[in-house]
Amino acid sequence: MDILLSGEFEAAELHEWDRSLRDALPEARWLDRDQALATADSVQVAVVANPPPGSLCGLPKLRLIQSLWAGVDRLLRDPTRPPGVPIARMVDPAMNASMAETALWATLALHRGYFDYARAQRQARWLPLPQRRAGDVRVLVLGLGQMGQAAARRIGQMGYRIRGWRLGPQAAPPGLEGLETHAGAAALPALLARADIVINLLPLTPATQGLLDARFFAALPRGAGVVNLARGAHVVDADLLAALDSGQVGHAVLDVFAHEPLRPAHPYWQHPRVTVLPHVAAQTDPRSAAQVVANNVRALFAGREPAHLVQLERGY
Amino acid sequence: MDILLSGEFEAAELHEWDRSLRDALPEARWLDRDQALATADSVQVAVVANPPPGSLCGLPKLRLIQSLWAGVDRLLRDPTRPPGVPIARMVDPAMNASMAETALWATLALHRGYFDYARAQRQARWLPLPQRRAGDVRVLVLGLGQMGQAAARRIGQMGYRIRGWRLGPQAAPPGLEGLETHAGAAALPALLARADIVINLLPLTPATQGLLDARFFAALPRGAGVVNLARGAHVVDADLLAALDSGQVGHAVLDVFAHEPLRPAHPYWQHPRVTVLPHVAAQTDPRSAAQVVANNVRALFAGREPAHLVQLERGY
Repeated sequence: MDILLSGEFEAAELHEWDRSLRDALPEARWLDRDQALATADSVQVAVVANPPPGSLCGLPKLRLIQSLWAGVDRLLRDPTRPPGVPIARMVDPAMNASMAETALWATLALHRGYFDYARAQRQARWLPLPQRRAGDVRVLVLGLGQMGQAAARRIGQMGYRIRGWRLGPQAAPPGLEGLETHAGAAALPALLARADIVINLLPLTPATQGLLDARFFAALPRGAGVVNLARGAHVVDADLLAALDSGQVGHAVLDVFAHEPLRPAHPYWQHPRVTVLPHVAAQTDPRSAAQVVANNVRALFAGREPAHLVQLERGY
Repeated sequence: MDILLSGEFEAAELHEWDRSLRDALPEARWLDRDQALATADSVQVAVVANPPPGSLCGLPKLRLIQSLWAGVDRLLRDPTRPPGVPIARMVDPAMNASMAETALWATLALHRGYFDYARAQRQARWLPLPQRRAGDVRVLVLGLGQMGQAAARRIGQMGYRIRGWRLGPQAAPPGLEGLETHAGAAALPALLARADIVINLLPLTPATQGLLDARFFAALPRGAGVVNLARGAHVVDADLLAALDSGQVGHAVLDVFAHEPLRPAHPYWQHPRVTVLPHVAAQTDPRSAAQVVANNVRALFAGREPAHLVQLERGY
């Protein structure tokens, strides 16, 4: 079983992936691009993490592209990607839990004013703020995939008034009992008008790119909190900065950016009402992700359909 | 039913308490100190919030002192407090929930490095940190009263390895199933040695004052997080600053201080590894607290024992 492993890793990171994948799937030979080309006819699987364009050419027997990341937007935009080869997204319970932690942390911090207190601290100002109950705080989660569901569940558990929205036609994905869900573009403005905090966990597709724009921010109640944990291209940066400066958006927590790393001169870094995270809301855990890869590869070779295949027509 | 209402309130705050208490207990007349002295023989209850020393003298029929705050250490130290009159602490489910929110927020922020990212942001540095799973993070809650229990429950729910400790002889208070609890001073050093995050929710008594000192910090694993949500006098400030500067304590979240408001020149304000909150971890909610007061006052007049009476021998 020959598998191409291709991605942009740092040395320590590559080492950890390498070890985890070998542990999870000891029957495989893990090949880099040159090795894979040398034995191209035997490579049926590529395991990839933001692979450089062109990495997947020249492998005529490829039957599965397994992403190590949950987001596959960059992979889908690669014009050299072999057409017709199924792509599996990474859906890892450990990563969903990690994303839910970040979403809950941001919700608690926005609700309880902890970003405001951090600002006050820099000026040595003792400034208690009025306190609301969680049950009076309305949180809207955009995107009801595995991560959106995990986040909504955790936030709901803390007593917040949680709603979910997805772009697709069906409101409630299976297994999401107890959460008020809505669907479709037409439903969004009314939901935004009732959201004190909005958390973006949508997939990036042509339909969701730039969704968080001036019109989106204007639909929120004044001073609402915006949390983007999905993709930088969901946000129109100039519009968000204008909404922050006018006070329409009270605070933004941003984990993802159109260009990463965020360049040092970007206004987000120094904006007093922006929290910048370096794309860490849910890092993939090699230990658990390697197990997901192993299960999917074994399913393929056993003649079963791998899990979490991308549906090209919906774009993720 | 004449009740003395005495405390240090700001005007807006007093207005809200006044309205909430009148709503919850419409059969009562609410008196200030002068009014109470004018009809001293009819005043059987005092509802207090950090009352100025001497506020409770001259009321010979006083049968209950009901605190609006959970901590009664200042009240107990007042030498003019009428001896023998029972004191009830405020134990309000809404306040416990609020404290649990802060404890969980601090735990998530320490675990996931969000204070480190905030520091990096000021220098426009993109610096992802290794990520641990919640199940690999050991959290120790000191104090297993209503607030400690609520905090431990929420933190445990998120998958952290949670332990509880109380000073008193019994480890597990009723109703705390599923939490590993320990008791007594002798057990503490070994628990600290296994705590990545320690959260103080102890009552302030002569036995717990200054508990968080150089020896306490030295017992923690290097780089541990310290969260003080109880009383400033639990912490020996000079020892904490030394432990932060040496790296023995990685970060401290402090909501309470020996002198409040914290004076502008205090080194905590500008310390890069200290998060200062202005005593807001769990503000009393007048709506729910007034209901607790009403229940206790009605119990007294119906001949039943009020709830959550201070036990002087244990100091809270």
